Amino acid sequence: MAESEKEAALPPKEEFSEWYNDLLWMAEIMDVRYPVKGLYVWYPFGFAIRRNTYNIIREILDNSGHQEALFPLLIPENEFMKEAEHIKGFENEVYWVTHGGKDPLDIPLALRPTSETAIYPMYKMWVRSHADFPIKIYQIVNTFRYETKHTRPLIRLREITSFKEAHTVHATWKDAEAQVKEAVRLYTEIYRRLGVPVLCSRRPDWDKFPGADYTDALDAVMPDGKTLQIGTVHHLGDNFAKTFDIKYEAPDGEQRYAHQTCYGISERSIAATISIHGDDKGLVLPPEIAPVQVVIIPIIFKKGAEEVLAACTDVRERLKKAGMRVEIDASDLRPGAKYYKWEMKGVPLRLEIGPRDLGNNVAVAVRRDTGEKESIPLPTVEAGVSSRFEAIHENLYQKAKTELENHIFDCTELDEVKEKIQKGVATIPWCGKKECGLIMEDRIGAGILGIPLEQKKDRNEKCPVCQGETETRVYVARTY
Amino acid sequence: MAESEKEAALPPKEEFSEWYNDLLWMAEIMDVRYPVKGLYVWYPFGFAIRRNTYNIIREILDNSGHQEALFPLLIPENEFMKEAEHIKGFENEVYWVTHGGKDPLDIPLALRPTSETAIYPMYKMWVRSHADFPIKIYQIVNTFRYETKHTRPLIRLREITSFKEAHTVHATWKDAEAQVKEAVRLYTEIYRRLGVPVLCSRRPDWDKFPGADYTDALDAVMPDGKTLQIGTVHHLGDNFAKTFDIKYEAPDGEQRYAHQTCYGISERSIAATISIHGDDKGLVLPPEIAPVQVVIIPIIFKKGAEEVLAACTDVRERLKKAGMRVEIDASDLRPGAKYYKWEMKGVPLRLEIGPRDLGNNVAVAVRRDTGEKESIPLPTVEAGVSSRFEAIHENLYQKAKTELENHIFDCTELDEVKEKIQKGVATIPWCGKKECGLIMEDRIGAGILGIPLEQKKDRNEKCPVCQGETETRVYVARTY
Repeated sequence: MAESEKEAALPPKEEFSEWYNDLLWMAEIMDVRYPVKGLYVWYPFGFAIRRNTYNIIREILDNSGHQEALFPLLIPENEFMKEAEHIKGFENEVYWVTHGGKDPLDIPLALRPTSETAIYPMYKMWVRSHADFPIKIYQIVNTFRYETKHTRPLIRLREITSFKEAHTVHATWKDAEAQVKEAVRLYTEIYRRLGVPVLCSRRPDWDKFPGADYTDALDAVMPDGKTLQIGTVHHLGDNFAKTFDIKYEAPDGEQRYAHQTCYGISERSIAATISIHGDDKGLVLPPEIAPVQVVIIPIIFKKGAEEVLAACTDVRERLKKAGMRVEIDASDLRPGAKYYKWEMKGVPLRLEIGPRDLGNNVAVAVRRDTGEKESIPLPTVEAGVSSRFEAIHENLYQKAKTELENHIFDCTELDEVKEKIQKGVATIPWCGKKECGLIMEDRIGAGILGIPLEQKKDRNEKCPVCQGETETRVYVARTY
Repeated sequence: MAESEKEAALPPKEEFSEWYNDLLWMAEIMDVRYPVKGLYVWYPFGFAIRRNTYNIIREILDNSGHQEALFPLLIPENEFMKEAEHIKGFENEVYWVTHGGKDPLDIPLALRPTSETAIYPMYKMWVRSHADFPIKIYQIVNTFRYETKHTRPLIRLREITSFKEAHTVHATWKDAEAQVKEAVRLYTEIYRRLGVPVLCSRRPDWDKFPGADYTDALDAVMPDGKTLQIGTVHHLGDNFAKTFDIKYEAPDGEQRYAHQTCYGISERSIAATISIHGDDKGLVLPPEIAPVQVVIIPIIFKKGAEEVLAACTDVRERLKKAGMRVEIDASDLRPGAKYYKWEMKGVPLRLEIGPRDLGNNVAVAVRRDTGEKESIPLPTVEAGVSSRFEAIHENLYQKAKTELENHIFDCTELDEVKEKIQKGVATIPWCGKKECGLIMEDRIGAGILGIPLEQKKDRNEKCPVCQGETETRVYVARTY
């Protein structure tokens, strides 16, 4: 990969769309030149971010009683067509396999757009008794949507390469409801680890998952003020259980329909993380997901070069032993070019070691998030680096949280909403009636994102459409 | 999942085909009831084996300078059709996506049967200079073959769920040849970690990968004496480079075609591992890939039950802290049913702790591979378990190696080959001429597997067809 092509300057982050596209390329996350629209290639560096991110997702799911499994990609048409609402929601975006070799298939096969209809015929056979509950299974797979809208890497794809979908089964509607809450909590925890603050809200009824009783969602606010849906959690009631005949024997011996939930996270998690933390110089990565966490730059003069290089190697080995991902950049590039390169790649901490530092028995640490320089004593370099990682992570999250709060605007008039959503997310009272909601959306020219899962109490306001009294505000936003 | 359904006895391993199918089900590796032929579902337990196995594969590839990336599943027809030999090899087994939503696609999209034609258009853009070499990239993906033959879980699939394919780029044919050797070495190392001894051979020219200069392969010998191809390494020469126009600037400034290799391993690695080590009681897993490495069975009497349970919990926590995967089975099952269950799942070590053992400050360790019982002192239980793991792994490998050696039969007559391949792998001299090879295959009624990569020296024998002198023997076998 020709280095020279990548030394062009990144556009300023204010020009978010250009910045995002160029960053993916210059930081070697995705190559967008694959010869099919909406399909992209993960560069090794980008894939390393994905690996680290999905390790966090796996860890949090595994530790909360989920089990990873794997179901087929191809769904026979007859299974796919069983659930009426579900089909309506997906039929325009499903890819169909119609031929094997030169012969037409007896039954066309859908590429999963999501896996309810692949998994639930198996659940019909697996679910037997209330004693089996809860069943909490997830898989991380590629899914497909024939997007006709403008596609965008990591955000709107025809092959979603990294769809983590969980599917749970419970006895009662209430048990499933509790699992929805738990899933929102776990997803919030995952994003906390990525330093990404989220808005949690219930989607309006006309925007829920096809076939669900209701949908809760997590959104991030992107630098341009639009929201990005980065996690959804669906209460499926017993709708799919009835369609796929998933029954269990209750303690009283009766056969009853099970209740289900499903919830998903995709590579949008990575889109949000890099968009929110990045800056004019490139990526800024939380240490936990950075493919390179520390880069060591030897500052070399004619005299003492060997000692400096030996000290750098020693520090690298010690940090590696402490479980950190470390590189030495002893290339011939001038220091400025080295800084450019590693800053672009979001390396959280740069350690510079020269003869004078060695004399003082320190390394100079430069933080990617703040640019601050500090000396770290070499004898305790592991602890020094580790505590900087914590500080960097916390700073990234707090900065993002402040940024998010600054982009939420409480409004009372629809005109105000119309203006504020150019900058971020507006809130506005809503009586909860669908007709008022649709009128609001129409007048604003943007959709209701959702009803915040946590509401301020004891508010008494008026719906801007019907003037009915309400305690509830909703988020309104331009969305990706 | 109803336990009762699974307490039926496993067929003896001698009836390999039935044993294999029942084992996959009873040990909860795969569910074969998915409603499309050749597509199977990974149960969570099976998937945990996959995770551990692929962690080994990733570790060995990462440590040898490979980088993981990810390329799209869908390949446009025009790219797929570029390499003539390659198409001929695959055109009868490719699945085609022809519709998106309700509309026919402009260009049909192939589901990758392998990814040369997805990756090499990108390599054309990525490869610039000799200084970039070697490029060593791999991905772990689902690939698809429209198999018309009898399908079998983990072995012959329509969705290969776990295809690890590496694609390397080099300056010269010799550099690529060296990489082929390195890949065979790495794959042998991977299988060594799985306790699986392999046969390494060069496929006869008429059985090489479509588009390759030559193909080296690793085979396991299955319990029924048939071989299972569990890894292939292809020298692609500059064949694909010419088709996809992959050129680099040589040190002399000339533009030259690159030389390439590719090599793959699939879930057949797991098929071989469980088939070779398993026994009449179920799975026998090498500790490194066992989802549960140690099961602790409290032996409880009315007196001292609390102390026993407390000791079991303490041992579990200590082993977990040492990085081991441990379960306590304190269920109400009778001991025999517990042994049955955990033996079926291949747990390498069972620790029984009762009041008398506590009095002696020991646990009784029962090895899954040999059934041997030994006392392990509780104060050093971590070291005791860890050393048993090593012994179990080594025993599994040595046993499998002896088994393999006992199934290789050096023959001089074709009739003898015909008889011996009913039990295993035959070797027979071959002059190397294609016409003699094809006549041999025809007379034997089975194919030449390959020419062993290591030959005994100074042999002087006769080709059974043309009587020409030769130093070379070839493997002949019935294959999966």
